[in-house]
Amino acid sequence: MTSPTAPLPDPHTLLAPAKAEARAGAEEGGVPIGAALFDLDGTLLGRGRNRRVQDDDPIMHAETAAFRNAGRRPHYRDTVMVTTLSPCWYCSGLVRQFGIGRLVIGEATTFSGGHDWLAEAGVDVTILDDADCTALMETFIRERPALWFEDIGTPADEH
Amino acid sequence: MTSPTAPLPDPHTLLAPAKAEARAGAEEGGVPIGAALFDLDGTLLGRGRNRRVQDDDPIMHAETAAFRNAGRRPHYRDTVMVTTLSPCWYCSGLVRQFGIGRLVIGEATTFSGGHDWLAEAGVDVTILDDADCTALMETFIRERPALWFEDIGTPADEH
Repeated sequence: MTSPTAPLPDPHTLLAPAKAEARAGAEEGGVPIGAALFDLDGTLLGRGRNRRVQDDDPIMHAETAAFRNAGRRPHYRDTVMVTTLSPCWYCSGLVRQFGIGRLVIGEATTFSGGHDWLAEAGVDVTILDDADCTALMETFIRERPALWFEDIGTPADEH
Repeated sequence: MTSPTAPLPDPHTLLAPAKAEARAGAEEGGVPIGAALFDLDGTLLGRGRNRRVQDDDPIMHAETAAFRNAGRRPHYRDTVMVTTLSPCWYCSGLVRQFGIGRLVIGEATTFSGGHDWLAEAGVDVTILDDADCTALMETFIRERPALWFEDIGTPADEH
């Protein structure tokens, strides 16, 4: 196992499968957010995308889908969560509870969740300001606002 | 819809289905934690239990199982999450992101997650100190420590 202090593989490279998941979600008419879990050597453990629409399932955010697809592990200290969008509180809680040590975020412009809270708790956070990720979310929020606000639990009178 | 400021139905009554879920989980050899989501009138929307062992699924904590079983909703402001054990950060994040207004907890003695953080964020938190819930967890942690620490992502050298 690589030391937790070793340099990460290039974060833009790690972002690629998460972006592919987000694009696939957009093509399916879903919420276009993707994620992937890696070990510190850059080996892909699991990837997934938000499946609210596809599976009619409100708990399948991108990060939880990737985490589930990685299977059961005794701990996650030596893993990296990569997501196209700043993780909401639900997915930030996942990262914190399971002690995921590093977090790579495509963009935090269209939505900002709990990444500052995670950084304060010791998680190594990298935000890439990836233009493709931002464009996917901007288009989605403009075209399907009700679905977006449902996905983050925001009542209509708070939009 | 009942006003958010109306008194809750008796929290011990609300706890009953969550306890039944926890007991069923114990009988199945799983992690004995149960949960249920209600509206403010006390109507059950969904119930569930930790399914790590049963479904080999690391994201199915009791609260996420109950939330999933309640189905998709536009928002959760008028709901109550009831759980047999203080919610871990992952499940606390669920409560916060989806704006669940009230939280009823069977016990917070054997494990303490994010309930204080939720209270600071404005969630109405009730802890019942239920002896049955505590006994279920004490037995489980004594008999199956590795499974318990896996469920909360704690590496063996931190037990």
